[in-house]
Amino acid sequence: MSALPKTAFIDPTGHNRADIEALLHQAIALLIEEMTQADARSPLPEPIATEQFEQWAQIPEQSVDSEVLLGWVRSQLKSSMNAAHPGYMGHMDSIPTTLSVIGDLLVAALNNNMLSVEMSPVFSRLEQLVMQQIAARFGLGASAGGVMVSGGSLANLQALTVARNVAFNAVDTGIVGLKGQPVFFVSEVAHTSMQKAAMMMGLGAKSAIPLRTNKNSQIEIEDFKAKLAQSLRQGQLPFAVVATAGTTVTGSIDPIEQIAAIAHSHQLWLHVDAAYGGALAFSPDHRHLLSGISQANSVTFNPQKWLYVAKTCAVVLFKQFELLDQYFRIRAPYMGEDTQWPNLGELTVQGTRHPDILKLWLSLQHVGTAGYAEIIRHNYEITTQFVEAVKARPILELASEPQMNLVCFRLAPETVSAEECDRLNSQLQSYLLTGHSAQSDSSSADHLERASAPVFLSLPTYRGRRWLKAVLLNPYTQPSTLEKLFKAVDEFVQAQGLD
Amino acid sequence: MSALPKTAFIDPTGHNRADIEALLHQAIALLIEEMTQADARSPLPEPIATEQFEQWAQIPEQSVDSEVLLGWVRSQLKSSMNAAHPGYMGHMDSIPTTLSVIGDLLVAALNNNMLSVEMSPVFSRLEQLVMQQIAARFGLGASAGGVMVSGGSLANLQALTVARNVAFNAVDTGIVGLKGQPVFFVSEVAHTSMQKAAMMMGLGAKSAIPLRTNKNSQIEIEDFKAKLAQSLRQGQLPFAVVATAGTTVTGSIDPIEQIAAIAHSHQLWLHVDAAYGGALAFSPDHRHLLSGISQANSVTFNPQKWLYVAKTCAVVLFKQFELLDQYFRIRAPYMGEDTQWPNLGELTVQGTRHPDILKLWLSLQHVGTAGYAEIIRHNYEITTQFVEAVKARPILELASEPQMNLVCFRLAPETVSAEECDRLNSQLQSYLLTGHSAQSDSSSADHLERASAPVFLSLPTYRGRRWLKAVLLNPYTQPSTLEKLFKAVDEFVQAQGLD
Repeated sequence: MSALPKTAFIDPTGHNRADIEALLHQAIALLIEEMTQADARSPLPEPIATEQFEQWAQIPEQSVDSEVLLGWVRSQLKSSMNAAHPGYMGHMDSIPTTLSVIGDLLVAALNNNMLSVEMSPVFSRLEQLVMQQIAARFGLGASAGGVMVSGGSLANLQALTVARNVAFNAVDTGIVGLKGQPVFFVSEVAHTSMQKAAMMMGLGAKSAIPLRTNKNSQIEIEDFKAKLAQSLRQGQLPFAVVATAGTTVTGSIDPIEQIAAIAHSHQLWLHVDAAYGGALAFSPDHRHLLSGISQANSVTFNPQKWLYVAKTCAVVLFKQFELLDQYFRIRAPYMGEDTQWPNLGELTVQGTRHPDILKLWLSLQHVGTAGYAEIIRHNYEITTQFVEAVKARPILELASEPQMNLVCFRLAPETVSAEECDRLNSQLQSYLLTGHSAQSDSSSADHLERASAPVFLSLPTYRGRRWLKAVLLNPYTQPSTLEKLFKAVDEFVQAQGLD
Repeated sequence: MSALPKTAFIDPTGHNRADIEALLHQAIALLIEEMTQADARSPLPEPIATEQFEQWAQIPEQSVDSEVLLGWVRSQLKSSMNAAHPGYMGHMDSIPTTLSVIGDLLVAALNNNMLSVEMSPVFSRLEQLVMQQIAARFGLGASAGGVMVSGGSLANLQALTVARNVAFNAVDTGIVGLKGQPVFFVSEVAHTSMQKAAMMMGLGAKSAIPLRTNKNSQIEIEDFKAKLAQSLRQGQLPFAVVATAGTTVTGSIDPIEQIAAIAHSHQLWLHVDAAYGGALAFSPDHRHLLSGISQANSVTFNPQKWLYVAKTCAVVLFKQFELLDQYFRIRAPYMGEDTQWPNLGELTVQGTRHPDILKLWLSLQHVGTAGYAEIIRHNYEITTQFVEAVKARPILELASEPQMNLVCFRLAPETVSAEECDRLNSQLQSYLLTGHSAQSDSSSADHLERASAPVFLSLPTYRGRRWLKAVLLNPYTQPSTLEKLFKAVDEFVQAQGLD
């Protein structure tokens, strides 16, 4: 085929082996050069100009040479989010394990499909067995199991869909004929995927009833009781409650045991969104924080966060895995059958699915539970240092007392208005990242060079105000990183005349 | 950290560079050795023993050495679905482009997140612009755009959810209060993700009303009209119709133009599931087969199939992209905002999402539209050869006249019962794969060595019977591959005394 470049595919008979070898080695060289110098780039680089993207987005008739393409990709990498940087603290995104990078490389080449056992004979089996091991780690019991899905939002969607189908026997005939409005309860600071799930499931986003939280962002049990009673009085049909183990902004953990007790007495499905905090099950020092999770009917857990597996890698576990058979499964007659192993495409919100199990399994094997426990211990030590530094500065305010490795805080000078305070925190974010207190369109490279210790904190809106959020997830973040960060905070405070 | 292996992460300051380099080169060596000899393994190898998986699934306390892990992975690769083999024809799964393997490698190392522009500044922009280019290729007009999702089932789910939300203004308050049952129409041989979507959306799987198909597996327009009229008479609320461009078993294309006309006159949302057939938009010779797709309100298209991008890579396009804003978007206040570019996590069924755009974009650039047109032409030539070989043998029967590169056929001797016929076709499948007409538990390597030209056809159930399905997708499948295949068919027929 004359229009095809010689390296379009890896020839299964080996005829282009030398060319493929050269191309893959170029790609590896690029990867190593950029990722082993990640600390030399900003944690959050300036974007590339829109015109450049418009040019790239054109689909060419003739093949563009692979060397040219790798050159373009190099400049794209340099302008991407740089979560490997020790000063990257903005979100629950971090550096991936090396073995998860290797896992995704091999999975891409092999191109298996989690849709059916026939299309992924190894990975379908491995996923089922590893899910049972992880479910056991949460104490979910002998009937527990799970599936992997492409991200935590899908995990929450699948868990709540099963809960709804169990409550209303809704698989075949849906919910339109119900006598009342099905609702479920979530923390007012729960992840927005709860509203999204309610919207997608035909309940409407408003059927995710928000529960008030205390000053540490945990569900107030009295409010849960009151809202549940009110809902029942109004003729609604409450069917589930969600406890969050690791809220998005402050990393707070709801009182799972107390919520479980109420759920049990009112026959509500208990879902625990431990997308972030589930990793504590791998920490002997901290797993008590998840106390009560063993009573959950379903659990979301994302190894793509605190277990450092490359995205995406998310899990939804069920205490009674066999419920999926009656309350979720849609059979696909075009697939081969295996008497012992289910076709996972019938049991998840997805059909064709990427084998995320290989990178998860490789990471667990390579890092080991002792390795994960050690990293989590380090994260907590760094967090303690961070919190102490905040508390030592009266001008700084904590959003809540951290339970995990998230610190949400802000500059809160007594003398300024709420709007001015929001603006100040936005300026501080910019100063910490670029060395300047306002972002500028021009000479961005200049700005970065002048920043002595660039740190990226995010700027979430929380309880109606702007805050600075630090997720202390990167294993390469050291005490010295924080010393420089707070030195820069002090410089900013002084320069603004706030001291 | 003493429990951590030295190569657990790629140190962003480069301290473990030499070790990382060695490890990545080992991984590449493994990949090259296995993938450049893919034709030496079976297209569908025998599975590994369950005991081995149970051992692998244990999560160790201490790190397992990376060399040991790569050895285990090598044996896993050898037992995986081998879609790169020229004789692999069982499913819509094929060999991936080389640049999509490189794309996924780099994406894993970079670990960006399609949730927000801040977390993927390059890929969020590139995805939006490339989606507009692809929408233009389907003729969807100036207001069209799209998003990527992790697989076609999610694309169909998102499209139907938007359709439902537009029809019933259901984002906030859902569908429980509706006066009738919302329903949509699909081919009786449409993909099962339609029933799954109906189930998830709270409509119930039965609200996906199946339409009868003609002998070539295309929706019968008269049946659509009749079912629509009946539904309206019964007080149901029809809101959408789905045309399939490339059915799962026979690759058939529904009469999109005629369906569009009826949809238009009854204000039904028209969704086209072109997960497979959408690739024909890249073939000047065959794009007329998609005639009418420009009138769709939404289109599913999976470059992971006939554009050979590594899985997952799926797209959902909307004629009026701005509808997502009012009829889908759930805002996430914890994310940074960009005035020009949307946070894609607010616009898709997922939140955190893998940047599939890099491998798609790299593949489009490297193969080029001329390269894709050439591969598709080759696929059609091979299909013609295949169909002629079937028609030349009176004992073989076609399920439908192929419109694309799928051939669904079976052995249909006049003298045998339906059950016996199903059993014969199952034996023929096994014979073509292993050289034996029944699978055996022991000495599988032996069997494979004796198979002269192993070919994997799948064995779907279709119209209540077993058929053999060939998807002629692999660019390395040659006329000689088919000659050997039909020689083996003839041998089987003779050995069974059917000739």
